[in-house]
Amino acid sequence: MKKPVSINKIIVQKYGGSSLSSPRKIREVSSLIAKKKDEGNSLVIIVSAMGKSTDELVSLIGEVADKNIPDPREMDILLSTGEIVSSTLMAIALKSKGYDAVSLNGTQAGITTDSSHGAARIRDINPDRIRNELAFGRIVIIAGFQGRSETGEVTTLGRGGSDTSAVAVAVALEAEQCEIYTDVQGIYTTDPAITDAARKLDVINFEEMLEMASLGAKMNPRSIELAALYDMPLYVASTFSRVNGTFIHGDTKIMEERKAVTGIAVDRNVSKISVLGVMDRPGVAAELLKPLSESGISVDVIVQNTSVDGTTDFTFTVDESVLDQAYQLMKNQNNIIFNDVIAGRGLAKISVVGTGMQNTPGYASLMFETLADEGINIDMITTSEIRITTIIDKNSVDQAVQSLHKSFNLEKPD
Amino acid sequence: MKKPVSINKIIVQKYGGSSLSSPRKIREVSSLIAKKKDEGNSLVIIVSAMGKSTDELVSLIGEVADKNIPDPREMDILLSTGEIVSSTLMAIALKSKGYDAVSLNGTQAGITTDSSHGAARIRDINPDRIRNELAFGRIVIIAGFQGRSETGEVTTLGRGGSDTSAVAVAVALEAEQCEIYTDVQGIYTTDPAITDAARKLDVINFEEMLEMASLGAKMNPRSIELAALYDMPLYVASTFSRVNGTFIHGDTKIMEERKAVTGIAVDRNVSKISVLGVMDRPGVAAELLKPLSESGISVDVIVQNTSVDGTTDFTFTVDESVLDQAYQLMKNQNNIIFNDVIAGRGLAKISVVGTGMQNTPGYASLMFETLADEGINIDMITTSEIRITTIIDKNSVDQAVQSLHKSFNLEKPD
Repeated sequence: MKKPVSINKIIVQKYGGSSLSSPRKIREVSSLIAKKKDEGNSLVIIVSAMGKSTDELVSLIGEVADKNIPDPREMDILLSTGEIVSSTLMAIALKSKGYDAVSLNGTQAGITTDSSHGAARIRDINPDRIRNELAFGRIVIIAGFQGRSETGEVTTLGRGGSDTSAVAVAVALEAEQCEIYTDVQGIYTTDPAITDAARKLDVINFEEMLEMASLGAKMNPRSIELAALYDMPLYVASTFSRVNGTFIHGDTKIMEERKAVTGIAVDRNVSKISVLGVMDRPGVAAELLKPLSESGISVDVIVQNTSVDGTTDFTFTVDESVLDQAYQLMKNQNNIIFNDVIAGRGLAKISVVGTGMQNTPGYASLMFETLADEGINIDMITTSEIRITTIIDKNSVDQAVQSLHKSFNLEKPD
Repeated sequence: MKKPVSINKIIVQKYGGSSLSSPRKIREVSSLIAKKKDEGNSLVIIVSAMGKSTDELVSLIGEVADKNIPDPREMDILLSTGEIVSSTLMAIALKSKGYDAVSLNGTQAGITTDSSHGAARIRDINPDRIRNELAFGRIVIIAGFQGRSETGEVTTLGRGGSDTSAVAVAVALEAEQCEIYTDVQGIYTTDPAITDAARKLDVINFEEMLEMASLGAKMNPRSIELAALYDMPLYVASTFSRVNGTFIHGDTKIMEERKAVTGIAVDRNVSKISVLGVMDRPGVAAELLKPLSESGISVDVIVQNTSVDGTTDFTFTVDESVLDQAYQLMKNQNNIIFNDVIAGRGLAKISVVGTGMQNTPGYASLMFETLADEGINIDMITTSEIRITTIIDKNSVDQAVQSLHKSFNLEKPD
């Protein structure tokens, strides 16, 4: 029996599915982990499922089910196997190199979630088992994306859930840092696929990153929220490149030295629903959205203007994939008096993001002017302290981003 | 919340991997299960992994590991995912047809094993969860081949382990019957691939089946042992055929009406090791085999002749895949004095099996004469009360089986 050794500086690393898409890549990643271990760190590795294996499991469901109502409990157990496969293979790869390693599934890693199958939220992490394995000098490999509900069922955390697993484990272990390795080199001022002027950021703060979560790194917003809440420094970088990535943290010192606008976030799958002539009364907005939340449909931008003559128009955006369902739910509202419901497809959301904006006027007008100069119509506007968001036609996205990136001087370093 | 209903007659069914090799086949099997449910039974279904998926997982291990020493703990967690995938897909298929179903992994099904990863033995089954699900009218789908050790680790039962899962669950639930559905139509007098004269048996008893376990149905011998021990009737049949299968049970009445010889069993992957000139003393045989059992190598036939001049020759057979390893272990014996160790490949084991033989002389000589008439040399002989086994050259197997099948009149029904 090996004797416990003292636990060194704990580093949590997460490797995404594209970095683990073949046995060869798993071997390559295992070499990177081994190198990090040689530097004397205590390592906890969170892995996603191999490449497209989650999609393959989802397509199997479509092939066995007569109707399109997969059981959420069964689906979660099925999908959780993808990360279990990659975590055991990673442990085997490391052991065959002579490094002691152990794989843990979500349950064994002590990750407790609520019971929302398919989109569970982490409630608590009991890190005893992980700490115990680390104390024996083992590299701990954890299957991401999954946990165990309080009633003992397997749950999954939804798309991008492994990022959340990684941050939550890092917080529970009071790790030095949580490193997210992926197929992009970090966080960019905007999507590099839209404009060559897009520039990788060396550093970004949590608030900005939350707004930009849909950018290049495609990080799960919940993982950023969690990191911000517990002030866990994140580092996003490319798995197989030696180029430096992006640090994400809450250090205001660094923020002050930087420019007001950090980047431009883009979401192309936006649809809107407008409920027209709603009889206004206290609580009507909450009541209107209730059937959506009961069906698990996320509403993004919500715009409601001041009511005129006791009625108001109420517009919100949803992901294009759930537009039809959301439309039907709105149509069938019984308790609310309204004139009509209309749906609109083919929209996109463009946000200019930056912590510095909150103290400096003129950014909103610069954004609107830039779009007007390009002849791009703005459908909806909504703002937060560090973000100005416009909803525009999807076909104008590239043009809008390219011109905004230029207007806000984002191609130049801070 | 659904209310518990009374549990009807419990039928346990096991479906093998070839019956579940595609989503389409899973749908077809789900229709068969649904039909059985409509007949008013309480159903517990044990599933193997889909088709070749276990082999695919094993080959992934080979691709990630530098050396060929996969970690048994990690390997078991990895391999257990194959059955979890098929059990959840079956539950989803049934639910989409409107039948309430729930999948359980080995742990959830209450299957406790010892800690021999890769070849664990079932210690106990706590059927509370299964009974509870049945009480709600649900069809229970259990991932075969796996359990949970007393220390909480995932274990697998070895090749053919799902048969053992099925029988053990049937015993724990006191089921009416355990049905094994596979890609053959039942148990044959010998391998139909060797001779067209091979005949499907309507009935066979446990003892004979135990000896014949390597025949057409390729059933796991441990599952037969367990069924015999608890007198659980088995039914082996083809999944997708309406032809009757074979009943396996302990009813002596039926046995008496049948002929003395039931069938001819064949095992083609036989190698032998002879340890020559072993200094004989009490306990030497046990000591000689100890390193093999410590390495998890199964020894099959063991032959030791009366010692001459205080030394004896000791021969045993092992599966061809482990011959080299076994040979090295024998060579390196320190505590035993012997002259030489020799290894032999390319052998086969042919057994004539039948409960009736124990009371009737002449069967052994009929077997030896038949082989002699064909000019086939017998390398080793070993017998039990209901079996005569010869080790012969692998190349003579077909000829031997065809002539023995004829000599013992097996082509004619009882």
